[in-house]
Amino acid sequence: MKNYEKYKVGYYMPPINEMKWVKKDHVKKPPVWCSVDLRDGNQALIVPMSLEEKVEYFQFLLSLGFKEIEVGFPAASKTEYRFLRTLIEKNLIPDDVTIQVLTQSREHIIKKTFESLKGVKKAIVHLYNSTSYAQREQVFKKSKEEIIEIATIGAKLLNKYKETMPETDFSFEYSPESFTGTEMEFALDICNAVIDIWKPTPKNKVIINLPATVSMSMPHVYASQIEYMSDHLHDRDNVLISLHPHNDRGTAVADAELGLLAGGDRVEGTLFGNGERTGNVDIITVAMNMFAHGVDPGLDFSNMPEVVDKYEQYTDLKVHPRQPYGGQLVFAAFSGSHQDAIAKGMDWRNKKNLIEWTVPYLPIDPRDVGREYETDVIRINSQSGKGGIAYILEQSYGYEIPQKMREEVGYFIKNVSDRQHKELSHEEILEAFRTEYINVFTPVDITDATFRKASTYKSDDGMIVDIKVTIDGVDYDLTASGNGRLDAVSNALKESPYAFDYTFVTYSEHALEANSSSRAVAYVAIADKDGKIFWGVGIHEDIILASINALVSAINRQKKVQPLTAK
Amino acid sequence: MKNYEKYKVGYYMPPINEMKWVKKDHVKKPPVWCSVDLRDGNQALIVPMSLEEKVEYFQFLLSLGFKEIEVGFPAASKTEYRFLRTLIEKNLIPDDVTIQVLTQSREHIIKKTFESLKGVKKAIVHLYNSTSYAQREQVFKKSKEEIIEIATIGAKLLNKYKETMPETDFSFEYSPESFTGTEMEFALDICNAVIDIWKPTPKNKVIINLPATVSMSMPHVYASQIEYMSDHLHDRDNVLISLHPHNDRGTAVADAELGLLAGGDRVEGTLFGNGERTGNVDIITVAMNMFAHGVDPGLDFSNMPEVVDKYEQYTDLKVHPRQPYGGQLVFAAFSGSHQDAIAKGMDWRNKKNLIEWTVPYLPIDPRDVGREYETDVIRINSQSGKGGIAYILEQSYGYEIPQKMREEVGYFIKNVSDRQHKELSHEEILEAFRTEYINVFTPVDITDATFRKASTYKSDDGMIVDIKVTIDGVDYDLTASGNGRLDAVSNALKESPYAFDYTFVTYSEHALEANSSSRAVAYVAIADKDGKIFWGVGIHEDIILASINALVSAINRQKKVQPLTAK
Repeated sequence: MKNYEKYKVGYYMPPINEMKWVKKDHVKKPPVWCSVDLRDGNQALIVPMSLEEKVEYFQFLLSLGFKEIEVGFPAASKTEYRFLRTLIEKNLIPDDVTIQVLTQSREHIIKKTFESLKGVKKAIVHLYNSTSYAQREQVFKKSKEEIIEIATIGAKLLNKYKETMPETDFSFEYSPESFTGTEMEFALDICNAVIDIWKPTPKNKVIINLPATVSMSMPHVYASQIEYMSDHLHDRDNVLISLHPHNDRGTAVADAELGLLAGGDRVEGTLFGNGERTGNVDIITVAMNMFAHGVDPGLDFSNMPEVVDKYEQYTDLKVHPRQPYGGQLVFAAFSGSHQDAIAKGMDWRNKKNLIEWTVPYLPIDPRDVGREYETDVIRINSQSGKGGIAYILEQSYGYEIPQKMREEVGYFIKNVSDRQHKELSHEEILEAFRTEYINVFTPVDITDATFRKASTYKSDDGMIVDIKVTIDGVDYDLTASGNGRLDAVSNALKESPYAFDYTFVTYSEHALEANSSSRAVAYVAIADKDGKIFWGVGIHEDIILASINALVSAINRQKKVQPLTAK
Repeated sequence: MKNYEKYKVGYYMPPINEMKWVKKDHVKKPPVWCSVDLRDGNQALIVPMSLEEKVEYFQFLLSLGFKEIEVGFPAASKTEYRFLRTLIEKNLIPDDVTIQVLTQSREHIIKKTFESLKGVKKAIVHLYNSTSYAQREQVFKKSKEEIIEIATIGAKLLNKYKETMPETDFSFEYSPESFTGTEMEFALDICNAVIDIWKPTPKNKVIINLPATVSMSMPHVYASQIEYMSDHLHDRDNVLISLHPHNDRGTAVADAELGLLAGGDRVEGTLFGNGERTGNVDIITVAMNMFAHGVDPGLDFSNMPEVVDKYEQYTDLKVHPRQPYGGQLVFAAFSGSHQDAIAKGMDWRNKKNLIEWTVPYLPIDPRDVGREYETDVIRINSQSGKGGIAYILEQSYGYEIPQKMREEVGYFIKNVSDRQHKELSHEEILEAFRTEYINVFTPVDITDATFRKASTYKSDDGMIVDIKVTIDGVDYDLTASGNGRLDAVSNALKESPYAFDYTFVTYSEHALEANSSSRAVAYVAIADKDGKIFWGVGIHEDIILASINALVSAINRQKKVQPLTAK
């Protein structure tokens, strides 16, 4: 037998499978969010949090905007009990926040759970028992009726203990645990039996939580199960359907999203999907997916780097570099075509003063989660292209590389990355560019240049220049005229004993505002007799000398491959 | 304005939106898999692979069963070109494997791409151009007609260059890049224009790849887009629809799966979802999801730890501990109720000799991906329970802890974890258990015991025992009779000057087969006068002495809290 043959689908299709939800294309309002970081998330850490860490994490969750937070299973461990008492006794729960506690359906546990809540203003007591075929058969060895009895006994006990604490505003939640392995008609029966005992009202709704305790199906099947439950639960208007997906099949986000279209009102999950095994659904991704569709998620992830730091500190887990919205690399573009499109998109956006976000390859504006274009987006390795490199030189350092020069600079920089076998930082890109192109003064170095109007000297119109130049270590004073200043300098060089066999191709110049000093930067291209182009870049506070430096740099770059020769 | 208000949905619903696929509940046969690890994946690495690494990774992909592998963009960099030439010239491509190369629609690039393929037996040439509204407007600044012309010029060039290399068996693939931001009617038009030029046949099918270059919608919307394309592409029988989802919204797996139901024939993706930004779809998860539904995925992940190692070595990225199927924690159960259910499920499975996999909380048998129950499943921290701890002591060390003893041992061990604030290894659990319960020989140490039939000594039936015992440092020789051996030993102790105020409660014993030595292990419970239970465990090669050791251990554990007193 092949090993895959031992698996059969372990889920149950609902008896009515309408899939009405599929006609809605996205979620238009946020669900009630419930963080289970401190219970389901914490219990799955290799080292669960200490009491002090739990208090700090609770306050961190509050700062993100959570209004419902499951704080633990107080009857199950001393730490969880003491944590809950600390929150209540130190008055750490804001008035608009409801804490939630989990309990099994056993009287001594329920009793202790209510005791642990003494003095709290509002609380959700979350009752669960396992309902799946597998657990009924293998773990509890009970009939369906006996499993329903476990739930209804617990439901009645919650009513009973609630009576003893009239000062607290209680809500109740019931989970048919392992819902995704349960026959849908049975899941419906047990939930309805509990609802009938709790008798919800518009002011005191009941939460029915339908967990993908283990994800077993494709996400549209889970949505169909949610739709069936939503269509057939008793007293539906007074029931909130809560979704609690796990990520065994890598589809917890899809489960939550399709489940919301299918009738879900509420999502239980964790930051970055911490939780048993593959984890719970990542609330950040579900919320930010809504955000990216123009829907206010009601949670604040505008400082994602801080969210990542806190998460890593308290859980001792790392956020993966490719984790949606939060990972280090999720806005990074290494490929040339992506970089080029982003650069053009950002340029388009600036020129058009666009409000709406439309930049290619960036699903959202990185700044909306506290990330920076300058360091997080265009990143340069051997796969990168001219567009990205030009973008960095412009955005970080103010160099507006001429269009025709970009391909050459792009190949040059990515070869540096390829040779060094590493990503280049912006500083390394600037340094490589500077060393290769800017103010290259050997073997030719023009140390002074004085211009006069030609009309006062010869019959030609144009400029006359006197230059002091060092060529291959020897100083010369040379004079010549030309149609313009660069032409005059070129003609003066041709008065030297050396051959300068190039033609002037193009020139551009702009102010370089980087680093607060205002200097000019000039770009010059010359061509040899075969048409091969050499670019040079010059910088100087004087715009004339910047252009001469650019010309000299271009000449010297030519001379690297075509050495100086006497005429 | 709030920051979320700058987003609108960037995708386009198809004009016909039937959602017929939603009636299928899971994928019943695997798609054609195409690994893009060496192109899309590699280009997104901070440090792309060297030529040697690429060759090794290619061979690793072959070992997993991939038959189509995109090896790069040979016209874009020297490394990619040399890599492709190395594969061909060193004859590293098996006959049943087809390599795929990417090219833009520009003649000099297409020409170089075909040159790079000289001598290969089979190849897929993958042509792409961007088709989205945003890229047409912002990046290419071209009309729809001009964008179609880019594609059709390239399609014709592929036909032309193919003619020049009759020795190679070419297939063609076309991607309307940024498909998910493209109006569906336009995507259909451009794909059909390309299909009409390539004129596929049953023997030479064309691949139409429909990438979620950036994921923009919920997964059922992508599926609807795929269904529309599948229903309206020309010559559909001779076209393979390929899916290429990215994970910006955390739903790439769902996109691939729903897309397969909707008409997809092929999936392009990477191991563990490496790729630009949030990455490509993780082929491992999609394949293993099929496996878990009893479908042969046609790829071999039976040695997942090795897959993880290789991946981490070559990409310099880590596989997240919660990554489905591959992560370190994805089979781990820390919570007591999960551990208990797994232990019962495994027991059920063994007793029933089940073939079908039904164990709660384990979506698949960890052994099917080369993982071990012993180290990867039941893990003990302060949140763990009696079931898991008993399971480890039994599975790893052979101790069949009596049901009634389990709760006490569970609390004892998890308090050790809580105090030390760390997860406990199996060895640490054994050591803590051993120190606390087994062969505890102070203050009472029975060093010898000889039994005789009572009938030969006194009138009582039963056993007579002579013991040598050290109590609080003083040696005694004591004799007494009893109904059984343990009763006789208890009575002998009562002959000492000390008070032994316990009653005997229960006893069990079994052979301990661990470590090849065959010894007996006995569990004894005694109760003090208030009914408080004390357990002790004894080990000895002699079954009688094992039970005496257990009794002595129980007594000594009582004496820790109720110190020895004279009578």
